[in-house]
Amino acid sequence: MTKQQIGVVGMAVMGRNIALNIESRGYSVSLYNRTDWKTTQVIEENPNKQLVATYSIEEFVNSLEKPRKILLMVQAGKGTDDTIDNLLPHLDEGDILIDGGNTFYKDTIRRNEYLANSGVNFIGTGISGGEEGARFGPSIMPGGQKEAYDLVKDILEAISAKAEDGQPCVTYIGADGAGHYVKMVHNGIEYGDMQLIAESYDIMHRGLGLSAQEIGDIFTEWNNGELDSFLMEITSKILKAVDPDTGKPMVDVIVDAAGNKGTGKWTSQSALDLGEPLSLITESVFARFISAQKDQRVKASQIIPSTTGAIDLNEAEKETFITAIRQALYFSKIMSYAQGFSQLRAASQENNWDLDYGEIAKIWRAGCIIRAKFLQNITDAYEKNPDLENLMLDDYFLDIITKNNQAVRDVVSKAIAAGIPVPTFSAAIAYYDSYRSAVLPANIIQAQRDFFGAHTYKRVDKEGTFHFHWEEGTEEEITW
Amino acid sequence: MTKQQIGVVGMAVMGRNIALNIESRGYSVSLYNRTDWKTTQVIEENPNKQLVATYSIEEFVNSLEKPRKILLMVQAGKGTDDTIDNLLPHLDEGDILIDGGNTFYKDTIRRNEYLANSGVNFIGTGISGGEEGARFGPSIMPGGQKEAYDLVKDILEAISAKAEDGQPCVTYIGADGAGHYVKMVHNGIEYGDMQLIAESYDIMHRGLGLSAQEIGDIFTEWNNGELDSFLMEITSKILKAVDPDTGKPMVDVIVDAAGNKGTGKWTSQSALDLGEPLSLITESVFARFISAQKDQRVKASQIIPSTTGAIDLNEAEKETFITAIRQALYFSKIMSYAQGFSQLRAASQENNWDLDYGEIAKIWRAGCIIRAKFLQNITDAYEKNPDLENLMLDDYFLDIITKNNQAVRDVVSKAIAAGIPVPTFSAAIAYYDSYRSAVLPANIIQAQRDFFGAHTYKRVDKEGTFHFHWEEGTEEEITW
Repeated sequence: MTKQQIGVVGMAVMGRNIALNIESRGYSVSLYNRTDWKTTQVIEENPNKQLVATYSIEEFVNSLEKPRKILLMVQAGKGTDDTIDNLLPHLDEGDILIDGGNTFYKDTIRRNEYLANSGVNFIGTGISGGEEGARFGPSIMPGGQKEAYDLVKDILEAISAKAEDGQPCVTYIGADGAGHYVKMVHNGIEYGDMQLIAESYDIMHRGLGLSAQEIGDIFTEWNNGELDSFLMEITSKILKAVDPDTGKPMVDVIVDAAGNKGTGKWTSQSALDLGEPLSLITESVFARFISAQKDQRVKASQIIPSTTGAIDLNEAEKETFITAIRQALYFSKIMSYAQGFSQLRAASQENNWDLDYGEIAKIWRAGCIIRAKFLQNITDAYEKNPDLENLMLDDYFLDIITKNNQAVRDVVSKAIAAGIPVPTFSAAIAYYDSYRSAVLPANIIQAQRDFFGAHTYKRVDKEGTFHFHWEEGTEEEITW
Repeated sequence: MTKQQIGVVGMAVMGRNIALNIESRGYSVSLYNRTDWKTTQVIEENPNKQLVATYSIEEFVNSLEKPRKILLMVQAGKGTDDTIDNLLPHLDEGDILIDGGNTFYKDTIRRNEYLANSGVNFIGTGISGGEEGARFGPSIMPGGQKEAYDLVKDILEAISAKAEDGQPCVTYIGADGAGHYVKMVHNGIEYGDMQLIAESYDIMHRGLGLSAQEIGDIFTEWNNGELDSFLMEITSKILKAVDPDTGKPMVDVIVDAAGNKGTGKWTSQSALDLGEPLSLITESVFARFISAQKDQRVKASQIIPSTTGAIDLNEAEKETFITAIRQALYFSKIMSYAQGFSQLRAASQENNWDLDYGEIAKIWRAGCIIRAKFLQNITDAYEKNPDLENLMLDDYFLDIITKNNQAVRDVVSKAIAAGIPVPTFSAAIAYYDSYRSAVLPANIIQAQRDFFGAHTYKRVDKEGTFHFHWEEGTEEEITW
């Protein structure tokens, strides 16, 4: 009996689409799903393909070439653990399990270690691009044993998205949880990008009184320049979409309460653990939370007096201001990525992942939700200087933010004056001004901590650790 | 042999001071420490007191009246677990262990459950006020079995701080981890208060060119009004303190890199888990993180072109602007507490703690780091309406924020124009404007999520869950 080259467990839409993608690149694929009918359905809907249905774990495992390559596309969490436990007794040393779910990276680290004890390799891989990407080419972020990656490299490269220069959007990220960590930060960045676009829309809609259609046209235009990105493209389409029911713009009938699946939250929580100031993405997570408090907001809007939201400008000023919003958006996007990549650096150090930031930006150029033209600039920056501490210090970005920081100041001021909330634009300029401040007022905080908790402080003019007796006016050097 | 009424384990400064505090209220106290000499030292330095040194766990436990009341003042984490494990074999059903450390509330929940299996009561209590408070009267936030609390209530009330009206700053908070949770949020609020004061200082120092002494005088004045608080009081003292070495203001010789012990971070991480928009406190945590990146900032300050930081005003305008900063500070402080108390509501629901928000504000009126006059207003608000969803909706606070929101808009705009980072002031106004917006641009985010991930949306005009086929322009009702 011929054996298949790879197996896929889990025939929900993502698993099914990935299996079809793999098959379409010339590989034979065994399929398995907990409930048989889904497997049968895939086979029936896709006749004359190199797809083989299996109906037991044993049959599935036995149908695969050794070392076996098994891609898990099951529910993250307990679903993944259960599947691993069911598979493990049937696996041999050297087999490779690949978890393609939206898994929390600490679970991936744990599973990698657990399976290594049985000699089974474990790759945790981020896959971005939604259903469409899974079927025709996602961005793939695999972490785990390098020697195992080398055995599945060809398949992953074949199914991945290709950037404009033809390069596959997959690269080996690092050991154990590195792949899922990078995917998590990708999603955090996605939250930030989405909120920045939403605030830009809000300023033009509430502030300038532009219609969805008009803003859609502006976004289409922006998408032809340095802001060229998938999210900008789909938002311009979204803004032009009309509700067949009411004839209104679709966005005007959609409730303004945003959901979330937790990956943005994880990114922020990890930043807090690492001591990384991930303010922009975190504000975008909080913006979703407050949007979800819709009932409270509607009530509050009737109680708390409000400004009109209008930004009063003549036509020429309006034109200039819309340009400023575009510049502010690009500036803020750069701040968000600067924070995200700074966090990747900290995580890499903490976990000994030896991440290659240029390669990460490179594989995000196509296939994934945050795909954008300017990722090439990030790749370039890290290729010029792999040890770059912050994207702001790269010449290209330094030039943009130097040119654009005045725009974000103007936009934030006008929005705040009009009563339009701009949490992520505000976070962007606060980060910029903090990062370029040689002196911040944290000396006050250190003094307060020393006053009430004897937490000590350092001095600007000599080495050592000190405590001040604030009531007596005397200083003590701490020598313990 | 007479038995003592309570025992204290751990003779570091906090444990020692609490023991002396308890003794000073007429209770006899057994002392125990892992290393004997510390216990001996406390006894020798405090002769003729009802303090009894013990030098083994057995001797310690046997020296106590039943049911035994044992206060643990040991290192949070492993120190606490080890101490509990050493004590447990010697305890009887009904004995009460009290953890007075800075413990993560989930550990308290775990220990409460673990000890309940042996019939031992466990109270996890927040204690705020630093060394001074521990000795003469802290604010105490105990959580655990109510019946156990009733047995230690008298002691805790005796040692606690007393508010102006004579009421003790302790109350039963709720089951298991409730006390440590409330202490954690207290510390988060402390982070926010400190950062807001630091930003106020920065605007006056960098922006208006005022000296530390001048700002100290302004803070002294502010401390006589509605901003009357411990942190305002000590900051004014700090700003007037002079370095005996150089003759410079102390704050000018203290390095601007703030440390943290993690409780602010925990508060933000919990907010993220609860879906609560705790933006201001989180920005204050991030502000500490970025302050700690001192080397990067110094380097960046030489590369990234900067504005001067000056806010150019004549004397009369300066006067008006300083008043606006005071109003902005009070406004922002209200936003921070509104977020913190909203988080307490969510945590109470999540953990079935049945928290009494008015009582919590009441016991923060004295003894703790965030003690302030305006906590009485928070107590009043919740006494008027225990189900108040947000502090902004209470008449007193509604009046203040309505009067002061223009001030924060002006202050933030001027600071941003001058290049002075104001992350928490910005978060305050963004929260206010978001909360009072009946419609936010999260419709864009829901549309984007539906476009790339088929995450569905709700409609403003009818019930149901929908998915739009964005390229085709058709809508589908989702019925699963």
